[in-house]
Amino acid sequence: MKNFVIKAPDNGIKEDIIKKIDNLNKPKGSLGRLESLALQICLIQQTLSPKLTGQCHILFGSDHGIEREGVSVSPRDVTWQQMINFTHGGGGVNMFCRQHGFRLYLVDAGVDHDLSEYKEIINRKIACGTANFRYADAMTEEQFEKAINIGCEMIDRCVADCGCNILCLGEMGIANTSPSSIWMSLFGNIKLEECVGAGAGLDSPGIKHKYEVLSDSINNFKSRHDNTSDAKTIIRCFGGFEMVSAIGAMLRASERHIIIMVDGFIMTACALAASKLYPEVKDYMIFGHKGDETGHRKMLELLDAKPLLSLGLRLGEGTGALCSFPIIESSVKMINEMNNFENANITKYF
Amino acid sequence: MKNFVIKAPDNGIKEDIIKKIDNLNKPKGSLGRLESLALQICLIQQTLSPKLTGQCHILFGSDHGIEREGVSVSPRDVTWQQMINFTHGGGGVNMFCRQHGFRLYLVDAGVDHDLSEYKEIINRKIACGTANFRYADAMTEEQFEKAINIGCEMIDRCVADCGCNILCLGEMGIANTSPSSIWMSLFGNIKLEECVGAGAGLDSPGIKHKYEVLSDSINNFKSRHDNTSDAKTIIRCFGGFEMVSAIGAMLRASERHIIIMVDGFIMTACALAASKLYPEVKDYMIFGHKGDETGHRKMLELLDAKPLLSLGLRLGEGTGALCSFPIIESSVKMINEMNNFENANITKYF
Repeated sequence: MKNFVIKAPDNGIKEDIIKKIDNLNKPKGSLGRLESLALQICLIQQTLSPKLTGQCHILFGSDHGIEREGVSVSPRDVTWQQMINFTHGGGGVNMFCRQHGFRLYLVDAGVDHDLSEYKEIINRKIACGTANFRYADAMTEEQFEKAINIGCEMIDRCVADCGCNILCLGEMGIANTSPSSIWMSLFGNIKLEECVGAGAGLDSPGIKHKYEVLSDSINNFKSRHDNTSDAKTIIRCFGGFEMVSAIGAMLRASERHIIIMVDGFIMTACALAASKLYPEVKDYMIFGHKGDETGHRKMLELLDAKPLLSLGLRLGEGTGALCSFPIIESSVKMINEMNNFENANITKYF
Repeated sequence: MKNFVIKAPDNGIKEDIIKKIDNLNKPKGSLGRLESLALQICLIQQTLSPKLTGQCHILFGSDHGIEREGVSVSPRDVTWQQMINFTHGGGGVNMFCRQHGFRLYLVDAGVDHDLSEYKEIINRKIACGTANFRYADAMTEEQFEKAINIGCEMIDRCVADCGCNILCLGEMGIANTSPSSIWMSLFGNIKLEECVGAGAGLDSPGIKHKYEVLSDSINNFKSRHDNTSDAKTIIRCFGGFEMVSAIGAMLRASERHIIIMVDGFIMTACALAASKLYPEVKDYMIFGHKGDETGHRKMLELLDAKPLLSLGLRLGEGTGALCSFPIIESSVKMINEMNNFENANITKYF
């Protein structure tokens, strides 16, 4: 796999940032999460006067072989139907991108349908969906590399196109809670049953079936491979092309000191996977939304992540993270625009 | 007191609203709180295509006699200093108003300082602060009426100035967690010790002192008055001019079918008080932020309120609620801009 140079932000500037925040015209700590966010962003950008520029949202779409096992309430066709719908502007992701000024990139990393006539969709199709990971590795080594590289390419494109320094990631891929649950279980060392949830709306028998399929998939994986704790192998053998592309994007974004806004269950699973490859990637991540999917809370704990919002969203597409953007903006406005006590002639009262 | 005509929104349209939301291009319920928000806003506006127009933030400032008892970590002078600071644009409230396009009205309802030279501050000073409610009623009946009327006047002004149909309220008044705690205790029938917190940063002995002062104040109130469970009497005998003005604003806003964004501890106490006068006022309220002040959670439960954000803000001024505005906007965009399944040609999958 391509080598990334990802360093934790230099803490040399930290004391000065905290001093600036503490001297703003407010009781110390009274802007809560906005203060810790501002600190993180200043550290990423190595400045006392951070800026958010050229915000981009990359939505990777792909299909999953495991969908054939009936693990999802929605049929595979919804992936391509939704990808097309996004080109018309009527999806959740479109609304929130418009609202918050995000440039939206739609990327076909492996949708099981010919989308080449839609010029709004960037065609990077690796295959028509992954292999069924119940019985085989989801992707080959070569496909894995390709997916990582798609993510990198997209980051470089966002920077070139609009000077992007803050990035949101989303996905469209029917059945992709299944690989996410497996990653959570294997990376977090958490019993599989605690990692399997309803996805877009399974009932109890459906969840039980999904659990059995995933459990069998893990057993088969372990019988096929020797080194079943290797992060790259786990990612490759279960991941979707859209998910591995997102991981590539996360790694390249942190290499380039770009803020990464992380969405719900699927993207948090990708963040977890990325952090197993390069732990420092976490320093560049802001978690936007705590979804309702069973186990998301636990996965966030593994990452020591405290999402900004908790609004019960479970649409995917990156919508939860997108909704958190104004909060991130507020934190940047705070450190740049708020008076300090000296300017304001206020009795410093705490 | 002036009579208000406040009716719960007509539920005749409810079924049609829910039908519209359920037919949007997403799994049913998958936009969580955005869906319940959209329903509430549609009901308030009696439409399937709601609009947010002319958003205004009214910040009422006033001083409190109880401050003389040493119940606050900040000195009284901070009230007028901050009011002036707000005219310069450097306060928390200014930033967030700019960010979200709110027109800001600063109203002096009873600040203990001559602010008449600041033409950005609307001068409605009732007195230089309330009486010390430990030993006397905070305000007279006449002053109470005046404060209610200031709130009403401001609502009518917001509508006339910019067609406001969504309103945020904030306050500046050193020591105003004290009356809020008492209202919470008396209106919610909750032990006073569970209602008293650190305000802007009291230490443990400070909190103990505050509790003793407030406890004594309630005892003295009960010995002065016969009908100590009358809502109006409780509001008048403890409230600040800025708080009663806010109550007046809430009542007039709901009378005019304006959405009311409710901020943290102080404004939630005002919302609770307002609901004791006219229970229907709650239907017009959106709770923006759950603050850290002890007891806020409990008070929110009394109102059956589920705030949109929980970011650890405790600055006051209405800042928490202001930060929630984009979420409210998202819910309106959802119901207006999102495709339905028929338009989108998507397999309806749940």
